[in-house]
Amino acid sequence: MTSASSAARATPALEIDLNADLGESFGQWRLGDDDAMLDVVSSANVACGFHAGDPAGIRRTVRAAVAKGVAIGAHPGYRDLAGFGRRAMDVESSELEADVLYQLGALHGLAHSEGGDLAYVKPHGALYNTIARDRRQADAVLAAIAAFDAALPLVALAGSPLVEWASEAGLRTIEEAFVDRAYLPDGALVPRRDPRAVIHDPGVAAERTVRMVEEGVVEAVDGSLVRVDARSVCVHGDSPAAVEMARATRQALERAGIRVRAFAAGGPAPSARDRP
Amino acid sequence: MTSASSAARATPALEIDLNADLGESFGQWRLGDDDAMLDVVSSANVACGFHAGDPAGIRRTVRAAVAKGVAIGAHPGYRDLAGFGRRAMDVESSELEADVLYQLGALHGLAHSEGGDLAYVKPHGALYNTIARDRRQADAVLAAIAAFDAALPLVALAGSPLVEWASEAGLRTIEEAFVDRAYLPDGALVPRRDPRAVIHDPGVAAERTVRMVEEGVVEAVDGSLVRVDARSVCVHGDSPAAVEMARATRQALERAGIRVRAFAAGGPAPSARDRP
Amino acid sequence: MTSASSAARATPALEIDLNADLGESFGQWRLGDDDAMLDVVSSANVACGFHAGDPAGIRRTVRAAVAKGVAIGAHPGYRDLAGFGRRAMDVESSELEADVLYQLGALHGLAHSEGGDLAYVKPHGALYNTIARDRRQADAVLAAIAAFDAALPLVALAGSPLVEWASEAGLRTIEEAFVDRAYLPDGALVPRRDPRAVIHDPGVAAERTVRMVEEGVVEAVDGSLVRVDARSVCVHGDSPAAVEMARATRQALERAGIRVRAFAAGGPAPSARDRP
Amino acid sequence: MTSASSAARATPALEIDLNADLGESFGQWRLGDDDAMLDVVSSANVACGFHAGDPAGIRRTVRAAVAKGVAIGAHPGYRDLAGFGRRAMDVESSELEADVLYQLGALHGLAHSEGGDLAYVKPHGALYNTIARDRRQADAVLAAIAAFDAALPLVALAGSPLVEWASEAGLRTIEEAFVDRAYLPDGALVPRRDPRAVIHDPGVAAERTVRMVEEGVVEAVDGSLVRVDARSVCVHGDSPAAVEMARATRQALERAGIRVRAFAAGGPAPSARDRP
Repeated sequence: MTSASSAARATPALEIDLNADLGESFGQWRLGDDDAMLDVVSSANVACGFHAGDPAGIRRTVRAAVAKGVAIGAHPGYRDLAGFGRRAMDVESSELEADVLYQLGALHGLAHSEGGDLAYVKPHGALYNTIARDRRQADAVLAAIAAFDAALPLVALAGSPLVEWASEAGLRTIEEAFVDRAYLPDGALVPRRDPRAVIHDPGVAAERTVRMVEEGVVEAVDGSLVRVDARSVCVHGDSPAAVEMARATRQALERAGIRVRAFAAGGPAPSARDRP
Repeated sequence: MTSASSAARATPALEIDLNADLGESFGQWRLGDDDAMLDVVSSANVACGFHAGDPAGIRRTVRAAVAKGVAIGAHPGYRDLAGFGRRAMDVESSELEADVLYQLGALHGLAHSEGGDLAYVKPHGALYNTIARDRRQADAVLAAIAAFDAALPLVALAGSPLVEWASEAGLRTIEEAFVDRAYLPDGALVPRRDPRAVIHDPGVAAERTVRMVEEGVVEAVDGSLVRVDARSVCVHGDSPAAVEMARATRQALERAGIRVRAFAAGGPAPSARDRP
Repeated sequence: MTSASSAARATPALEIDLNADLGESFGQWRLGDDDAMLDVVSSANVACGFHAGDPAGIRRTVRAAVAKGVAIGAHPGYRDLAGFGRRAMDVESSELEADVLYQLGALHGLAHSEGGDLAYVKPHGALYNTIARDRRQADAVLAAIAAFDAALPLVALAGSPLVEWASEAGLRTIEEAFVDRAYLPDGALVPRRDPRAVIHDPGVAAERTVRMVEEGVVEAVDGSLVRVDARSVCVHGDSPAAVEMARATRQALERAGIRVRAFAAGGPAPSARDRP
Repeated sequence: MTSASSAARATPALEIDLNADLGESFGQWRLGDDDAMLDVVSSANVACGFHAGDPAGIRRTVRAAVAKGVAIGAHPGYRDLAGFGRRAMDVESSELEADVLYQLGALHGLAHSEGGDLAYVKPHGALYNTIARDRRQADAVLAAIAAFDAALPLVALAGSPLVEWASEAGLRTIEEAFVDRAYLPDGALVPRRDPRAVIHDPGVAAERTVRMVEEGVVEAVDGSLVRVDARSVCVHGDSPAAVEMARATRQALERAGIRVRAFAAGGPAPSARDRP
């Protein structure tokens, strides 16, 4: 499974997964350019209908993902179309577990019909943020994944408590970092209300991403270096600027000799974590 | 047209499947008494969330069905909670196909988590009625089933054009009759606006059902006999009276020596159609 | 602000408003017995479609309320049919304000078509609980009411911070107490997870209510007396037991010589607060 | 404010209303450029939440319409977000009437909060098409408008049966024509499946519109002239091309000396119908 291999440098070639949220249109409403993004990313987090995604639109996205060899991940969210799943909701555990199961099954049905399969689960928006730190809701999501297919890895915020909780539940996690988000010294993301939260310069974002992969660190807003052991990096997919940012990131990675490949596509890929 | 009884034992004992629509609560709103019905029926048509059924409620119903050995069928409908899926909708083919696939996958995810599986598909309400006669929408539903699992049988109105269309699509159909609905001389159901549409007397309904199974006929509103070759009969499940009607029907069938058994539970069951 | 006072007639007859949540069916799903409740209560908190209530059902309820002379209050909630508006949601202020305005307008349109009018606003479920203590969401709701009709009173939890905030916003509040909920010594309700939260005995609930009106106090779970200055008391309307509880409460009030009358029906009604 | 004026020919200056569907975003999903369109049109058909339009987005649109002096019309649709209200639905009369009332009230609440008012009603999509020819559903919509405010005019397809039915119901109608749709010789629109249905050239569309206003005719697909007595013409508002088309139409009208003005803005405006 190793690429590289030579004498002098025994390190295997670096790899990283590039993921983006796709399939987030709904009926007449279009969001993002899934076709363009599927030429850039290695993993597609596909909406499952609760925060976005009508069945026919989801199916078009999974069809294109299958055609382009992009890994399909389930991207379940809160039942909140009006809020796009970005509003925290105090959902009771048995309801949340069933809501996630429902969405995994629904996406699987559509993916299967196009010759695809689910490769991982990455919750969306407020659900993603909540389970990174809220044990009760996290357990409900973990129970849903375990009941659906305990072999499905969960993509989680690198360094968050969720990684440990998932491990306790017997699930594998893939830690992820963000290409265009600023970090606090403790490894948390700068909240969106903070004007520094988002990095808009594709060049800067791309360079930071290369460093995350090569060195396993990112510069926080105070100039300190934060350890970020990520196997996947997330780019946004919902605007024309997002496509440009994603392309710049991929090009920078490849120029640095880093292979962009779905973590779910084959055997274990080396990451910063694996290096000494 | 007689049922069995002759010399050596030339004919296997008669069997029939008894199905009802279940899992049709939604959040705080309860509809029907699923636990009581699951003690009576052999097949449960479980709502899939578009016309009724929230995921946690659906899961409770499939869990009870699994515990009681009742076959689970998918009961997909139009996306119309406010109309309970009872309003005809002119849904475009690719949307309808994806909507059905989504619902089949979602229910499968929940059933699977409880150790169950989908045994058949029976569309709900206006979708059921529309595809019985509308080729375009029928083809969309058939394509969805074929894409999901071409081995899943479709429960269809006995004698309707849909039976033929499904056969052309390579799908197996189970024809069904209605315990408490009146029939027109041509085999169609008396429309609901007609005051004679529904049979309210459990004894009458039960007796008619026994005759359908034993003789393959039902008396139409004009007194003529209509041929009804049904492998399953449908009882309503959404009211206290419905439970009573279902129990009366089952008792009458069993008193007549007819076994109530899910058609999907095992090998081919004999029906009026199979007899000489 | 004092009524009473004079010599010859020292105290006006006591009055209290009895309110219940109604109009909470949705399409095929029925909840509560609105007709029965409208014979008992003086004010109906009518669902506005976001947590419950389809337009035709809402209209039936306001029609009956108008016919029976029951005051109609708007009962807006979070946009959450699946959770019946009982799940806390972190809704952004401008969205929440517009959501409430939308619901007030919608209910007004239906009430107006039946010759009725909105007499007050009482938020539902999680929104009611949240704005009792969360200033940001409270301000959004208050802004919506002020923009719709600044003369509409807001029904609020007696003694909660919301009462003060509403006053600062120039709105009138009607403080309410609960007929069948237990109180903590500080005047808060015993949370629902606590087994003591709900009072199930109609006699006990009725007697407590009479005391609240006559003496302005209620016995807390620790036996201490809590001051509760309420102009309206809330009974539940969503079960057969609720109707019985409501009737027992009304009968006990009337036996004690307390008039049950909508606070919004006429001039200022005397309450425990006004007494010396 | 005077039209007319000259000596020899007492003809008043021609006027026409230009309307477009706006407020059709939903939460995170944007559709059309309402700000740009509000600089061009004289009347805005504003979505009411059932087929499109979240309350906060609707409010932004009505605020901008008020600021720019554009008349606000209610644009109610079927309850069908996934289908954008473009799918025919067999909605029962009392439900449809209440659904429309609910939407009128909701939009009124939002418009009123911004200092605006409803000036007319124009149903959306499949509801618009259905009531143009289906008496039962038309009567339900007419009953809703009459119950809400019998003085509100209804915008209807020029020459359709609905115009007569509305008149029988005591409602005023404003007949409208379409800037970029092709006509059949009998005055009906060329169905959308027909490749000739839509006129894509802004210049051609603008010229046809000028002729409709000046001469009261439009050239049908077979070259014959069809009489179209329209007081309002509809431009599409949901794409960048739509803005360009709308601008070209308005410029052509003004170059021809035709004033673009909301029919609802003041006294009766002259139209082709009024000319000798």
